[in-house]
Amino acid sequence: MASVDVPVALLGYGTVGSAVNRLLHESADDIERATGHRLRVVKALVRDPEKERAYQPDPEVLTTDFASIIEDKSIALVAEVMGGIEPTGGYVLDLLRAGKPVVSANKQLVAQKGAELFEAASTGGVQLRFEASVCAAIPVIKVLREALVVTNVHRVLGIVNGTTNFILTEMERGASYDEALAEAQSRGFAEADPTDDVSGADAAAKMAILATVAFGSRVTLADVDYEGIQGLEANDVEAAGDMGMTVRLVGAATLVDGRLDVRVQPALVDRQHPLAAVAGAFNAVMLQGDAIREITLEGPGAGGIETASAVVADMVSIIGTTGTGFLQNDACWRSVERLDPGKLRSPFYVRIEVEDRAGVLAHVALRLATHGVSIARLVQKQDNGSATLHIVTHEAPAGDVEAALEEISELEESKSPPAALPVISDRGVPGLGWA
Amino acid sequence: MASVDVPVALLGYGTVGSAVNRLLHESADDIERATGHRLRVVKALVRDPEKERAYQPDPEVLTTDFASIIEDKSIALVAEVMGGIEPTGGYVLDLLRAGKPVVSANKQLVAQKGAELFEAASTGGVQLRFEASVCAAIPVIKVLREALVVTNVHRVLGIVNGTTNFILTEMERGASYDEALAEAQSRGFAEADPTDDVSGADAAAKMAILATVAFGSRVTLADVDYEGIQGLEANDVEAAGDMGMTVRLVGAATLVDGRLDVRVQPALVDRQHPLAAVAGAFNAVMLQGDAIREITLEGPGAGGIETASAVVADMVSIIGTTGTGFLQNDACWRSVERLDPGKLRSPFYVRIEVEDRAGVLAHVALRLATHGVSIARLVQKQDNGSATLHIVTHEAPAGDVEAALEEISELEESKSPPAALPVISDRGVPGLGWA
Repeated sequence: MASVDVPVALLGYGTVGSAVNRLLHESADDIERATGHRLRVVKALVRDPEKERAYQPDPEVLTTDFASIIEDKSIALVAEVMGGIEPTGGYVLDLLRAGKPVVSANKQLVAQKGAELFEAASTGGVQLRFEASVCAAIPVIKVLREALVVTNVHRVLGIVNGTTNFILTEMERGASYDEALAEAQSRGFAEADPTDDVSGADAAAKMAILATVAFGSRVTLADVDYEGIQGLEANDVEAAGDMGMTVRLVGAATLVDGRLDVRVQPALVDRQHPLAAVAGAFNAVMLQGDAIREITLEGPGAGGIETASAVVADMVSIIGTTGTGFLQNDACWRSVERLDPGKLRSPFYVRIEVEDRAGVLAHVALRLATHGVSIARLVQKQDNGSATLHIVTHEAPAGDVEAALEEISELEESKSPPAALPVISDRGVPGLGWA
Repeated sequence: MASVDVPVALLGYGTVGSAVNRLLHESADDIERATGHRLRVVKALVRDPEKERAYQPDPEVLTTDFASIIEDKSIALVAEVMGGIEPTGGYVLDLLRAGKPVVSANKQLVAQKGAELFEAASTGGVQLRFEASVCAAIPVIKVLREALVVTNVHRVLGIVNGTTNFILTEMERGASYDEALAEAQSRGFAEADPTDDVSGADAAAKMAILATVAFGSRVTLADVDYEGIQGLEANDVEAAGDMGMTVRLVGAATLVDGRLDVRVQPALVDRQHPLAAVAGAFNAVMLQGDAIREITLEGPGAGGIETASAVVADMVSIIGTTGTGFLQNDACWRSVERLDPGKLRSPFYVRIEVEDRAGVLAHVALRLATHGVSIARLVQKQDNGSATLHIVTHEAPAGDVEAALEEISELEESKSPPAALPVISDRGVPGLGWA
């Protein structure tokens, strides 16, 4: 097949944009072998065309004029690598409605404006792809949409934020939270203001996208309950280690009895579980489904060249499926209601600080039993008149565990509010809850 | 877009064929959402149409007449799930030349006859897909060809045989090789005659396919050096454990200085390495490349429904890309010469049994040093007049290590031929050799 010249445009030309242009140049032969087409960046929208770039484009490429992109009929597709919600979202909507396929690396945009974006894509009759918006080069969207099309995925578990995973790995080695955060910042894994990462907000946006694709029902950032790692105590990390587990910030999207639950929170992960092996700034996503049991994908979840590699793969996939109707449509095709979060079942790790008095363990055990929560393992540590109970429960609804802890916090022996974290230990058992 | 009815045929209707038909029925809506098409099995070639089937097809579907499939112009694609080289290979060649796209789950066919098959596909102008031929539902072929199209993959490491991985996991827990094999057989993970698995032949066929796709150069079964786990001693598994490592049967395809090496052999894997976490009958493949550092895919590498899920995904991908030219072509597009196997660099674990005499360690160390092999770690165990040296070397060419061991085996203190296994400990360092 004769080679076809395909002019493309970029919105943004920073680290990722430069890397996209470089990959398109350096891998032009690879792309032509796969698609019969040669992709060539002809325009890139930037604020300051004079700024120095990591990979300098031809001088006529940089432009401040969006109209020169949307009105150029020769431009076959556009990659959005500028980030932000506005003006980016408006540009992407306009491009899609104008019939230009778009690849986006923007998780906040896809997680917050997914419905509008896909409606615009449908209006324009073109594809919107967004692999790079979740876990950079790890091809989890492609695998979910194209390889697992008939597998009924019912749970997605993910370590989808490298910053927090790096911090937790350091804490496992004995660092305090503050020391670990400082180390992450000095290595460039955390921003000066790390809130977006450590609060779980970044992971929540990614889980919203993964849940939408996995379950075919729109999940936005607002639908995700999330909790970060700021409140985590070295205490809990140590107790996890003593019990053969490790603490990870886990995103979990679960389909239970026709309802869905999406959340991000610290969890104790059994050392035998694939997610426990994910160390440092790496990411991993485990997909559990009927026909596949489970498939885990692991790799670097960030980085300019890694993200660019996913952007280019999406561009290639669009070129390779244009006109066939394949994946033209929104991954979201139905509306699944949210599960009452209190009904999500899991084993839990519970930490309870009490005064070290006779009978206190019985009081605690009674409150748990009253709510139907049974104890699988218990370690009691005494220290200077107080005792800390580290308990792992059998599987129970989160709401029942919370209700029991509420009562326990009101015991006169109680010294501080009890903490509960879900425990992840199973591997691909179809069914309920976290574990 | 209006739904399009797509008649398809199967070659074979055993466990996988039944599961393919069931998935196509039960997931018809999912497939239509992705492709706009409804796939329907209209013919399945079998030897005995009277035999009972796990998922009974409509009575007119089963046929013993291949001509009724190849001559039926309405049949849009064919999935080969019968296995074997002949007559299967002949059928597949005929179908491709006649312009029918084929999906194959047959690793031996693809590994041994790849060149002919892809030439026939090119003649017929149709696609041949083969995801299910390697690691069942783990979508490693799709990821390599479609997601990593611009990443210059230079090394593929894989645990691609579940039977041997199960046996090694049992041996790690203290079982002997014979006990572990018996357990694998009783659980249905190993055949009555386990030769194909334990010899490494099965893994070698899969690595030939993975290397062909990753490097774009034809690698057949005959190009893969392989060694199984039959010769492995409980001794080595224990020594590995003592050194924080675990023994795995590892397939490694490596591109070094423009030459390639593909091999399967037992290796010591550092416990921090993702492949060490792969337990039981699971499979995992790690892809290392320039733009991605490394991506690891893990999951069940066998099973009827898992294999069928990959077959259906390939059918869906063909429907989704027909007419675009995408992936029409052979993944193999160049000819890369083989690396002299003695030049492949790796750290090695070496076990040497000697008489426990003064000076023997010096003799051994001298022979290693003469060949430029330096010692990173050494454990000496004494037992009743003899000593076993467990050594981990720094990275060295395999040929130099072999030459040193050859000389060591000729020392008068030597009690048995020394053994050497590669050590895998790095994570995605671009470059040379095993580790």
